Amino acid sequence: MMRLLLISVFIRFAGASIGDIKIIDVNNGIEKDFSFDKRFRPTWSDLDKRPLPEWYDKAKIGIFLHWGVYAVPSFGSEWFWTNWKGNDNNQKYIDFMKNNYPPGFTYQEFAPMFTAEFFDPAAWAQLFAKAGAKYIVLTSKHHEGFTLFPSTRSFSWNSVDVGPRRDLVGELAAAVRNESLKFGVYHSLYEWYNPIYNQDKDNKFKTHTYTDTKLWPDIKQLVNDYKPSVIWSDGDWEAYDDYWRSTDLLAWLYNDSPVKDEVVVNDRWGIGIPGHHGDFYNHADRYNPGELQDHKWENAFTVDKKSWGYRRDMKINEIMSIDELLYQVVSTVSCGGNALINVGPTKEGTIIPIFQERLLSLGEWLSINGEAIYNSSPWFYQNDTMNQKVWYTCAKATYDAAYPTRQPDDDDKVNAIYAIILTWPDKSVLALGDITPYLYSGTYKVEMLGNEGQYLTWKITDGVSAIQLPDITTVKSQNAWTLKFTKK
Amino acid sequence: MMRLLLISVFIRFAGASIGDIKIIDVNNGIEKDFSFDKRFRPTWSDLDKRPLPEWYDKAKIGIFLHWGVYAVPSFGSEWFWTNWKGNDNNQKYIDFMKNNYPPGFTYQEFAPMFTAEFFDPAAWAQLFAKAGAKYIVLTSKHHEGFTLFPSTRSFSWNSVDVGPRRDLVGELAAAVRNESLKFGVYHSLYEWYNPIYNQDKDNKFKTHTYTDTKLWPDIKQLVNDYKPSVIWSDGDWEAYDDYWRSTDLLAWLYNDSPVKDEVVVNDRWGIGIPGHHGDFYNHADRYNPGELQDHKWENAFTVDKKSWGYRRDMKINEIMSIDELLYQVVSTVSCGGNALINVGPTKEGTIIPIFQERLLSLGEWLSINGEAIYNSSPWFYQNDTMNQKVWYTCAKATYDAAYPTRQPDDDDKVNAIYAIILTWPDKSVLALGDITPYLYSGTYKVEMLGNEGQYLTWKITDGVSAIQLPDITTVKSQNAWTLKFTKK
Amino acid sequence: MMRLLLISVFIRFAGASIGDIKIIDVNNGIEKDFSFDKRFRPTWSDLDKRPLPEWYDKAKIGIFLHWGVYAVPSFGSEWFWTNWKGNDNNQKYIDFMKNNYPPGFTYQEFAPMFTAEFFDPAAWAQLFAKAGAKYIVLTSKHHEGFTLFPSTRSFSWNSVDVGPRRDLVGELAAAVRNESLKFGVYHSLYEWYNPIYNQDKDNKFKTHTYTDTKLWPDIKQLVNDYKPSVIWSDGDWEAYDDYWRSTDLLAWLYNDSPVKDEVVVNDRWGIGIPGHHGDFYNHADRYNPGELQDHKWENAFTVDKKSWGYRRDMKINEIMSIDELLYQVVSTVSCGGNALINVGPTKEGTIIPIFQERLLSLGEWLSINGEAIYNSSPWFYQNDTMNQKVWYTCAKATYDAAYPTRQPDDDDKVNAIYAIILTWPDKSVLALGDITPYLYSGTYKVEMLGNEGQYLTWKITDGVSAIQLPDITTVKSQNAWTLKFTKK
Amino acid sequence: MMRLLLISVFIRFAGASIGDIKIIDVNNGIEKDFSFDKRFRPTWSDLDKRPLPEWYDKAKIGIFLHWGVYAVPSFGSEWFWTNWKGNDNNQKYIDFMKNNYPPGFTYQEFAPMFTAEFFDPAAWAQLFAKAGAKYIVLTSKHHEGFTLFPSTRSFSWNSVDVGPRRDLVGELAAAVRNESLKFGVYHSLYEWYNPIYNQDKDNKFKTHTYTDTKLWPDIKQLVNDYKPSVIWSDGDWEAYDDYWRSTDLLAWLYNDSPVKDEVVVNDRWGIGIPGHHGDFYNHADRYNPGELQDHKWENAFTVDKKSWGYRRDMKINEIMSIDELLYQVVSTVSCGGNALINVGPTKEGTIIPIFQERLLSLGEWLSINGEAIYNSSPWFYQNDTMNQKVWYTCAKATYDAAYPTRQPDDDDKVNAIYAIILTWPDKSVLALGDITPYLYSGTYKVEMLGNEGQYLTWKITDGVSAIQLPDITTVKSQNAWTLKFTKK
Repeated sequence: MMRLLLISVFIRFAGASIGDIKIIDVNNGIEKDFSFDKRFRPTWSDLDKRPLPEWYDKAKIGIFLHWGVYAVPSFGSEWFWTNWKGNDNNQKYIDFMKNNYPPGFTYQEFAPMFTAEFFDPAAWAQLFAKAGAKYIVLTSKHHEGFTLFPSTRSFSWNSVDVGPRRDLVGELAAAVRNESLKFGVYHSLYEWYNPIYNQDKDNKFKTHTYTDTKLWPDIKQLVNDYKPSVIWSDGDWEAYDDYWRSTDLLAWLYNDSPVKDEVVVNDRWGIGIPGHHGDFYNHADRYNPGELQDHKWENAFTVDKKSWGYRRDMKINEIMSIDELLYQVVSTVSCGGNALINVGPTKEGTIIPIFQERLLSLGEWLSINGEAIYNSSPWFYQNDTMNQKVWYTCAKATYDAAYPTRQPDDDDKVNAIYAIILTWPDKSVLALGDITPYLYSGTYKVEMLGNEGQYLTWKITDGVSAIQLPDITTVKSQNAWTLKFTKK
Repeated sequence: MMRLLLISVFIRFAGASIGDIKIIDVNNGIEKDFSFDKRFRPTWSDLDKRPLPEWYDKAKIGIFLHWGVYAVPSFGSEWFWTNWKGNDNNQKYIDFMKNNYPPGFTYQEFAPMFTAEFFDPAAWAQLFAKAGAKYIVLTSKHHEGFTLFPSTRSFSWNSVDVGPRRDLVGELAAAVRNESLKFGVYHSLYEWYNPIYNQDKDNKFKTHTYTDTKLWPDIKQLVNDYKPSVIWSDGDWEAYDDYWRSTDLLAWLYNDSPVKDEVVVNDRWGIGIPGHHGDFYNHADRYNPGELQDHKWENAFTVDKKSWGYRRDMKINEIMSIDELLYQVVSTVSCGGNALINVGPTKEGTIIPIFQERLLSLGEWLSINGEAIYNSSPWFYQNDTMNQKVWYTCAKATYDAAYPTRQPDDDDKVNAIYAIILTWPDKSVLALGDITPYLYSGTYKVEMLGNEGQYLTWKITDGVSAIQLPDITTVKSQNAWTLKFTKK
Repeated sequence: MMRLLLISVFIRFAGASIGDIKIIDVNNGIEKDFSFDKRFRPTWSDLDKRPLPEWYDKAKIGIFLHWGVYAVPSFGSEWFWTNWKGNDNNQKYIDFMKNNYPPGFTYQEFAPMFTAEFFDPAAWAQLFAKAGAKYIVLTSKHHEGFTLFPSTRSFSWNSVDVGPRRDLVGELAAAVRNESLKFGVYHSLYEWYNPIYNQDKDNKFKTHTYTDTKLWPDIKQLVNDYKPSVIWSDGDWEAYDDYWRSTDLLAWLYNDSPVKDEVVVNDRWGIGIPGHHGDFYNHADRYNPGELQDHKWENAFTVDKKSWGYRRDMKINEIMSIDELLYQVVSTVSCGGNALINVGPTKEGTIIPIFQERLLSLGEWLSINGEAIYNSSPWFYQNDTMNQKVWYTCAKATYDAAYPTRQPDDDDKVNAIYAIILTWPDKSVLALGDITPYLYSGTYKVEMLGNEGQYLTWKITDGVSAIQLPDITTVKSQNAWTLKFTKK
Repeated sequence: MMRLLLISVFIRFAGASIGDIKIIDVNNGIEKDFSFDKRFRPTWSDLDKRPLPEWYDKAKIGIFLHWGVYAVPSFGSEWFWTNWKGNDNNQKYIDFMKNNYPPGFTYQEFAPMFTAEFFDPAAWAQLFAKAGAKYIVLTSKHHEGFTLFPSTRSFSWNSVDVGPRRDLVGELAAAVRNESLKFGVYHSLYEWYNPIYNQDKDNKFKTHTYTDTKLWPDIKQLVNDYKPSVIWSDGDWEAYDDYWRSTDLLAWLYNDSPVKDEVVVNDRWGIGIPGHHGDFYNHADRYNPGELQDHKWENAFTVDKKSWGYRRDMKINEIMSIDELLYQVVSTVSCGGNALINVGPTKEGTIIPIFQERLLSLGEWLSINGEAIYNSSPWFYQNDTMNQKVWYTCAKATYDAAYPTRQPDDDDKVNAIYAIILTWPDKSVLALGDITPYLYSGTYKVEMLGNEGQYLTWKITDGVSAIQLPDITTVKSQNAWTLKFTKK
């Protein structure tokens, strides 16, 4: 195991000289001797050495909430403001405003209608827990600049001063933790229309007024007051990380902040940074590569296929089916990613029934199949070579998040292999390729999660294992099914 | 058949002397010789003689829309106003208003917020057509008195003067007809807070000011302007039919109105009338007797189990599952009823995704199983004696809506018997009782709708038929399944 | 003449049954047959016989209040709705709406913003009392149809159901009476956009649906509930009195209503009626003929020279100066009229400071000069022949409202002659013509109101009396001044 | 003295570089070292040396405009927010909110209702010009923090982003200058509820985050963008000038800003500063000492005696009469002050008629009497010893703003003495004391402004001059009158 881990570390930190430090395990939960004798310097090479906090890799399922003033027009998407007023303004938005509001109506004037009167954070948290999520990421501030907490630097443009009249971040953080879930915050670096930012931008980012007097104070307030376990950065793409002072921020976060041991951050910290630095990588929205990645990653996607923020005029065919949702979750986890599933709450503070249904369907599925998801590791194979509808994960004898697993694990390191089936096969006979050597060995038994103890039979022909699934009418799981392969 | 029909007529018109008229068939579609040589007199005995227009019996599936100013608070139910302000006012509603509105805010002040900006009648009509509905019933006016059409008698309290600024009844009527569906209107006789009504009420209904200067003009305007195929009367329970002048209205409707040949009305026309008079009976809301009825009836129920009007704070567990919905549809049609399925549109003019999903799921089911529903007749049996999860319908050789079918029809009168299965049986073997004599005869073959041509086998033991269903993974229908029994 | 008038007065106050008697009509002094069989028939000839209730003639000063939903846009005038939406719609109004409201905004949607939160009826009444008014006329309903009382026939379009949430008519009536002022109501016969009315209009007024089901019930409710001393009818000009059933209404009012002894009505009861029938005549708005009239009349004018309803964008030069206001009052009373002075309250329920100032200035003037106004009679002369800035009134020995005074009264019938000076003369010497014969007689003494007891001297030259006024710096009255001529 | 002052004037207008020179300070007439090395150092001692720009002393009459979000509740005063929410919150305000708004309504939510739809800056400027004002001071930001210009540092809490959607400061500045008036800005140093400020306050003003990141940038933006001739500072009283960095600001303003030659500032720059430093002193609001001051000062007072911001529920008796207004103007100018007369515009952008009337009355008065006001200097006497209703000013041969005039000027330095009479005397005979020696000399002639050329006579008895005023009915001026004493 050691050897493999060192390889993994080498890969993760490729290009960075690690020096003479000794490490046991970059990620696992066992007692470790991972001690820098010095603090992280504000350089990417140094920051990249930080081990990923284990909780995040194990969590696998998060829920993403895009909530803001855009929930008031609730039209088009959370990019409403700039779609309407931006350089590439869009006739659809212009017409919407023209048809429904007085001339000159400003975006900020929507804010008092962001009422949140039905916002029940405890009920939300219970829903998320039932959905099987292990962490929540709430937009503490989107590109509009409106903060869902009483930002000292957004006087009169935050959820306590206008609209909900509540500290939405604080209330949800408490409720979520009460359900033993982790709480994280999305935070947009830039603000489309904040003139302080736009002054810096006009100065070609040679000045840092926005960074120093708005951005940093806001993030520090967020971290100090709410102790988020995730900082999901966004809105980084107009400037380089030196403008944002990203490495300074992260060094503070990793060295001195109250969440230094637990926090994870994504990779959106400036032009050229996504996919290169950060505790986990998001790359672009809805990133789902379909193959194992070198670095911990996350697939952030949204149940409403057209928007992250709530749209009042959604059509049902624009909403992910439970099958589409499970495809995202399963393929992502199989390839070492986490799934961050977005739903947009309404201005009233509700999560609409169709989102409740999708989340609860997922939760029911996870209540049976969660063993193959939470705490799992990617297996040597991901998508079965013979059957694109099947994805693998595995349980290691000792939890070990390291990936990629570049070669088949030894038998003694893997406690179980899971094959998750997204489409029930014709005649209930499942054909698999990659598992064949294991089954061929005769040392494995196979059962379906939810129907444990009922061992399945198979035939192997030309390297293909044809496994006879149980009578579907007796099967407990719905929509997708997990076969668990363990040694006899 | 004649004899049976006379029995049926006798039952339907029990208590009423029919006189010396000759009738052939009260309901069927064949050419008939049903001619009054005189007009309907405004007496129940006379009005009850009117045959049911055939389209209604054949339609089976309607969609009910509760839409009004209550979509603005959108809290509790469409009875919001009187729950809040009525004699039995409810703390929940009082608190809601206290917490969210200025003191003294009136119900009428909600109306300008009933914006309907997303109301797309064509899209609605397409949704309803896809859902398999054959008629639509829209609340032209609920107990609040607000009319969704420009009622001459509701100046400044209608959808053209305040709020949507559109003739919602007129626009939806046109769109619905464009999809070849029938259009009907719900209409509340009483208005909780109309002082003209309340004066009559204070006069113990000895005066008819409301009836004569508000109610009748409104209904006539509705009928003349929109030519509804259904008048779904409600709000009748405080006064007798002589106060409402119900028989006068119906006599006009049946004799002289532009919809005299097509219109159907329900049974809410005054104290003591429901279940006794009307083209079809609704009895109470959600009436579903589970057994064959003597008179055409309709089960009006709502997908949101707690409200007919839209509630912003719905929880998913308060919404009918597709299984619950199919249970209502199937058991209702089996017993000779129509299913009028309610969804509450939002103040914005949308039908929310969860309702879209339920309706489209129903539509998909009907696209396979509709043969057993539309144009069907009740069979001699309804709910199978052995298997409560199975309900029967049948197709007559000649369409014949007459019911009850008090004894088994002769073979030559029934083209097909349908057994609709609401729960897939264990081991895929369906046990049925009532069908056994037919199967036993050896003259029937059995197939499943959606999998036609694949004939099923069965075994009969002790009067129980055990039918081997197809492999469920090969079956096209979902959620419920129909077996069709036809003669070889 | 005196004796007969005394009889008439006796009848009025005794409320006794009278037979066929001959009296001089108090309105025009013409002897005529005043005979009725105890009740007025619904004919103008009969109704015209009714004697004018004395209180009205004595009151002289009333305040007119135009208050309604138009106080919300508060732009242009109280005719806002039809100026905007009517046939001759006006670009100024269209632009105002386009610039400030969403497309499609309706007039009725202004109503919830008619908040009246500062409406303090007691404070209003005190202001009116201080202003010297003796009666108040409030728009119970203007042409918009919105009633300031809970009209049974304007459900949801009245001040209790929407906006103020108060019975403005009832509250003001009580407050005004508490200050010992009379309370009256303005009431518009027609309603621009009431479809019931417009149906009758489309029927060329051959139908009376509006009259019978809306107009009469409303007026009766008003009279029965609020017992107004004045009914100030308006909006009569589109139809003849037989459409309005005006004589029926008045006969009921004079014979059977609870205000039959006290009520006065104006002359707007149908095409051709103004200036011909009614207890007093208004003729057109702002009628001020400048000469004595045959019939009791009233000059209804408005302090805002451009509007009766409040306009938010008033300029000071559009508002009557105190001099202009006194001119109207003085010239009107001199010619036998009453002055009904209009101010438009705001949607908040205030009477703006400039109106307060004008009214209180008038009140201060009346506190000194009221003797020449209240209870006064027209004198033989009105506007002095020599000096257009001077108007006369007189005090009769016994109150006698009869006018015109077609010939100089005998000395013993007139207790005092008043000459009201609107402009202080150069050198403080007032030249008068018509009074000269009286002064010449040597039997009169002259003093100025406010400076009583200080007798003035004069010189007569060529029929012109040159009266030496007091040193203006010692004079109590401001803006206008009254000379009182009494016999030594 | 004259010569040195001329130097100072020269310096002021030439903007030349000056070395170490000795001059008499124009503010207090005391000879002192006026030496600086071309630039002011940021010390009070240095800043105090700056000569007062002459335009300000000559202007005499300014108009003050308190306009902000408080114009929306428009209740109580412009201190609404803190009266409602502050430590000493006031039941009246709490009740107002409770009675008229939903629970939890925030002050910021008023902002979208600050519509300013009738704001016509050209019309305002014309009104102010007609009122005789020479400069305007608009609240660019009051203690609420809402800026009437698009402050970079008040994103979403300024008049462009929310409410008026206009740059009110910019628009008014342009309009006012178009009427050849000076434009100035009021600016509050502190903001009640800006959390950045309150953090510094919590830190006992040891941190300067607010000062450095909000206050200074705002003021610089104001000065650079709008080039105000007056900065009327306020809200200074919680901290010392070192917290505000007042001297730095002023040094920049006097040395480097685009208004360095023209700008004047008042004295509210920190605890202990008012009455001690600044181009002119305001001391407390409504400061009117009644005697000559050592330093240029200004009496800022408000026509609504109870509030600076507009109140919708004003009573006329709470509004200054023209007499009260003239008393303030005359007594102030007599004692060397300027009068800054406040009116509060409405949220709609109007100046209500009563304010228009007062301002225009003042303007009419000034059109006759302005000679005694504008460009005038205090005379040796101010309030006449014998007659408290009379105040003096004088016109110097050469304009000379120096005061106090510690001893009677030589004849050749004074071109005219003005005695302004606030109350017309009994019998039109004016008794004066202080002027007696001049009249006694026999070298003076006396006339009344508006009636020039008509010389008045007088008698002197026991040191009292009894001047016979003209017949008031021939006098042009109203409300107050000016006697002009010039040498024959």
